[in-house]
Amino acid sequence: MTAKPRGRRPGSNDTADQILAAARELFAERGYARTTIRAIAAQANVDPALVHHYFGTKDALFDAAVQMPVDPRQVMSGLPDDPRAIGPELVRRVLGVWDRPEMQERLRGMIGSALTHEGAAETLREMLTRGLLPVLRDLALDDDRRDWRAELVAAQMAGLIVGRYVVGLPRLRRASSADLVASVGPVVSHYLTGRL
Amino acid sequence: MTAKPRGRRPGSNDTADQILAAARELFAERGYARTTIRAIAAQANVDPALVHHYFGTKDALFDAAVQMPVDPRQVMSGLPDDPRAIGPELVRRVLGVWDRPEMQERLRGMIGSALTHEGAAETLREMLTRGLLPVLRDLALDDDRRDWRAELVAAQMAGLIVGRYVVGLPRLRRASSADLVASVGPVVSHYLTGRL
Repeated sequence: MTAKPRGRRPGSNDTADQILAAARELFAERGYARTTIRAIAAQANVDPALVHHYFGTKDALFDAAVQMPVDPRQVMSGLPDDPRAIGPELVRRVLGVWDRPEMQERLRGMIGSALTHEGAAETLREMLTRGLLPVLRDLALDDDRRDWRAELVAAQMAGLIVGRYVVGLPRLRRASSADLVASVGPVVSHYLTGRL
Repeated sequence: MTAKPRGRRPGSNDTADQILAAARELFAERGYARTTIRAIAAQANVDPALVHHYFGTKDALFDAAVQMPVDPRQVMSGLPDDPRAIGPELVRRVLGVWDRPEMQERLRGMIGSALTHEGAAETLREMLTRGLLPVLRDLALDDDRRDWRAELVAAQMAGLIVGRYVVGLPRLRRASSADLVASVGPVVSHYLTGRL
């Protein structure tokens, strides 16, 4: 932990940034449930009322502090309706995002701390549960297994990302996006719309 | 890094253990390619000839030092030949291994250091490439995509493990093994033997 500058804050953006930094730190350390607005305010060296003023509820502050690097809703918007086309197109778009090196950097940081701090694991779970799963759920067949379908897709995509970018298995790492789309896309379609 | 006891070594097992500990440390720090027998010997405070004496080649020492927590060949032995049955049975067995808490502990450590040290990532890649992929390859349809099939199965299983044990997505975490076997098993069968 590095020392924080405690000098004058010239503008309100600094205060907001300071609150966000404190929130990120505490959410990662303690997890969502055990982090309070009061503790974040103390950590940021501001009055709790200021935290409410800038960010409203703890939920809203959480969303602002641990934003997903990209907005899943945007990445997944306008996917084809055709059940056979939806999985391949989803895989293509996710690879398009993750092939950017700065995303891989970000991923390592997030998973790394999730593994070492239970708080960070809870935060990652919370991010995915709020940010990603509802989007996947909306893409899934409207039956009583929608939430299950969403998690199966998330797991398949997580495995692809871990295999390609984190561990770097030889063929997954070198494969073209088109090869991965062709092999994994139909499985994603199956999880979203097939008979489970 | 903790200081190592440098006192008398009462028996040869101590020397072997010391070499293994040094090997694990250097493989994790520098990766497989950049770690030499000479450096391991220096780290273990023994003559390089002793390393060769106990472990033979660098390859053999690597295998001894970074053993997978379980032997994939054993876990996967005697799987059914029926293409529809093989995936579900494979998922069932892998979950049987990972549902043990000490395995999850071990996993966190391995992935955690793989994310923070490129050397450890290379070591994990090397472990999976030597230990797991050949076993999966042997289970796959004997066509020209066997290696690709093996990596697709590895990625699917990695995603399941990350989703269930590392991130802990709500439904994956609570699901019975039977539910996961029913949903993911057919996909594993597909990757192993289906039309890609």
